Amino acid sequence: MIRFRITKKSERSRARLGILETPHGTVETPAFVPVATAASLRTLTSEEAAEAGSQLFIANTFHLHVRPGEEIVRNAGGIHRFMNWKRPLMTDSGGFQVFSLGFGRDFDTGKFSKDRTAQGGLPEIKRGRNPSSLKITDDGAEFRSPLDGRKLFIGPRESIAIQEAIGADMIFAFDECTPAHASRGYIEHSLARTHRWAKDCLAAKKSEQALFGIVQGSHFEDLRKESAGFIGALPFDGFGIGGDLGDIKESKREMFQILEWTVPLLPDEKPRHLLGIGYPEDMEPIITHGIDLFDCITPTHFARRGVAFTREGRLNLRQKRFLSEFQALDDTCACGVCGAYSRAYIAHLIRAREITGLRLLTYHNLFFWNTLVARLREKIARGEL
Amino acid sequence: MIRFRITKKSERSRARLGILETPHGTVETPAFVPVATAASLRTLTSEEAAEAGSQLFIANTFHLHVRPGEEIVRNAGGIHRFMNWKRPLMTDSGGFQVFSLGFGRDFDTGKFSKDRTAQGGLPEIKRGRNPSSLKITDDGAEFRSPLDGRKLFIGPRESIAIQEAIGADMIFAFDECTPAHASRGYIEHSLARTHRWAKDCLAAKKSEQALFGIVQGSHFEDLRKESAGFIGALPFDGFGIGGDLGDIKESKREMFQILEWTVPLLPDEKPRHLLGIGYPEDMEPIITHGIDLFDCITPTHFARRGVAFTREGRLNLRQKRFLSEFQALDDTCACGVCGAYSRAYIAHLIRAREITGLRLLTYHNLFFWNTLVARLREKIARGEL
Repeated sequence: MIRFRITKKSERSRARLGILETPHGTVETPAFVPVATAASLRTLTSEEAAEAGSQLFIANTFHLHVRPGEEIVRNAGGIHRFMNWKRPLMTDSGGFQVFSLGFGRDFDTGKFSKDRTAQGGLPEIKRGRNPSSLKITDDGAEFRSPLDGRKLFIGPRESIAIQEAIGADMIFAFDECTPAHASRGYIEHSLARTHRWAKDCLAAKKSEQALFGIVQGSHFEDLRKESAGFIGALPFDGFGIGGDLGDIKESKREMFQILEWTVPLLPDEKPRHLLGIGYPEDMEPIITHGIDLFDCITPTHFARRGVAFTREGRLNLRQKRFLSEFQALDDTCACGVCGAYSRAYIAHLIRAREITGLRLLTYHNLFFWNTLVARLREKIARGEL
Repeated sequence: MIRFRITKKSERSRARLGILETPHGTVETPAFVPVATAASLRTLTSEEAAEAGSQLFIANTFHLHVRPGEEIVRNAGGIHRFMNWKRPLMTDSGGFQVFSLGFGRDFDTGKFSKDRTAQGGLPEIKRGRNPSSLKITDDGAEFRSPLDGRKLFIGPRESIAIQEAIGADMIFAFDECTPAHASRGYIEHSLARTHRWAKDCLAAKKSEQALFGIVQGSHFEDLRKESAGFIGALPFDGFGIGGDLGDIKESKREMFQILEWTVPLLPDEKPRHLLGIGYPEDMEPIITHGIDLFDCITPTHFARRGVAFTREGRLNLRQKRFLSEFQALDDTCACGVCGAYSRAYIAHLIRAREITGLRLLTYHNLFFWNTLVARLREKIARGEL
């Protein structure tokens, strides 16, 4: 059960301020949703993620199903108790990761694309090993566990059952996330299936959890609009906008295009979540296109590669020059890391492969992103966005 | 400058309670000294290490000289500011690590011993690559940087200069740590050199830092006693007892034997530090043998291999059974990790290779060790040890 109240609508854009009430407290929207893939915001504790201003997390159903298995999370008393996170939580449906297993291979041409294997956050899993193990039927997807090769099946009913066992406040319908370059023919077929699955998910859910439907349709205007109309008319508690946006440079333009097409067709009074995308500079346009929630691995992912987000832009702490810069990552940042540690120290830790360096960057980046979004909320409140 | 006051002497053993005053606050002794190899207590922040009850750290001169270089630490305002640690700090002399470079090869037989390459805390450095690059002369040791092959030289003067640049409160004299199985002839020669170096270090030091001399002599009673007498008579601020104790099973008996021989010959009023050794069960006998300070990588090293120290003994969180144990690591432990997280969650994180799992174990182990030593101090105070 969630309640979403829009407290202010911008007159200059589709931006809006809202309060999302959940069984684990409220979220001020627009909000950035950090990704706690395997029920852990990588390198941090839940307490630290909260301290860094995170209002909610999204965890990955696919990862938790494969390891440790949802029954362990259920037996722990649900994901909130399992990971000691007292604030709101979402789980995705597992669809993105399941279908990403097939991204090693172009659905239409049969060609392998190396780019696709780099995504999805399962670094230790050799995804490309056997991409053809993914079999998609109208009931769902059969695939081999990337961990131990065991056969697994997830369809709409299975996804909902897993998400009920995990026990987040908000869950997502199982959808097929099609590869960026799939043909129109494939997308049409897939979209009809995703729409059937949306209804199956609504019918399957027995819990009180809020269920979000997902709009697909790739980069085809008519299919996106059809999907927004269809999904938007179903009794979901909120809506996700999904998709594999392929090439990064192309994808930004496409992403805003897709928001232009779909957001106006979704019920105004329900929260809208943009799935898995974004750099700091994207947040403002995402929000002015009417998005309330958006998840992204960028701040945490980049931190683990030695990159800090600052007012000056991105700093790659692997560069030697930072070893002799004794100021904070960002002099204007109020986070605990910037208050206590220098660029030189963090650069040293990164070079010495010390885990603490990754933590300090993750914490700072998270704080930086959450602060940026908080400032954008203030801008909406002041009528400036 | 340090001041050491003994506040109580046991009537049952050589155990004693003391207060060690340093420019960065006081240490209650006996105290466990966690190892912050590269100016970081691996996986933790300095704040957390303090929260977990750590009174002081020892950092590694060798590691900091090789990376990032002591000038960076000096320019950062010294190691306290560099790593944001406000409490007392020690650095070792670099001797143990330098001479460990040669441990790949038995000094007398020329044979390689695999065991030796596993020690010393430089996991990413291929130490065995070129062990013969270590050349020991009466002036010091010439060796190649394990990072980039660059030629380096450390002798007593160099070690003191590096330690002065790093700026810890307490520093150690440069000694040769001989391999466990070196011949008596080699040890005799080496010990004479270590004794000359001890005087060289005293003469070289220009700073106000407290300087500890190191007793060597391998497992020979007469050499150990000779060393304790010689080093103990020099105007050091404290004393370290060093050595490579070889085989673990043998070494415990030997270690206590060495303490029996040497401790009574050291000045009673100065602090005594046992270098680099110990399991939880060793702490009590170490303390009853008259040791005031002892450093050890065990709690942090084992944590990174998935092992928790608890009242029940060691738990290997990699074992599957822990995935369905929802109690704390140690029900009697008052640490933040035991208050917030279950064995199941930590076991999940370890299996999922999540860094946060290593952190939670490191924090708990450190808290557990510090608490154990605090209880031993209380036992001395009550006259029970």
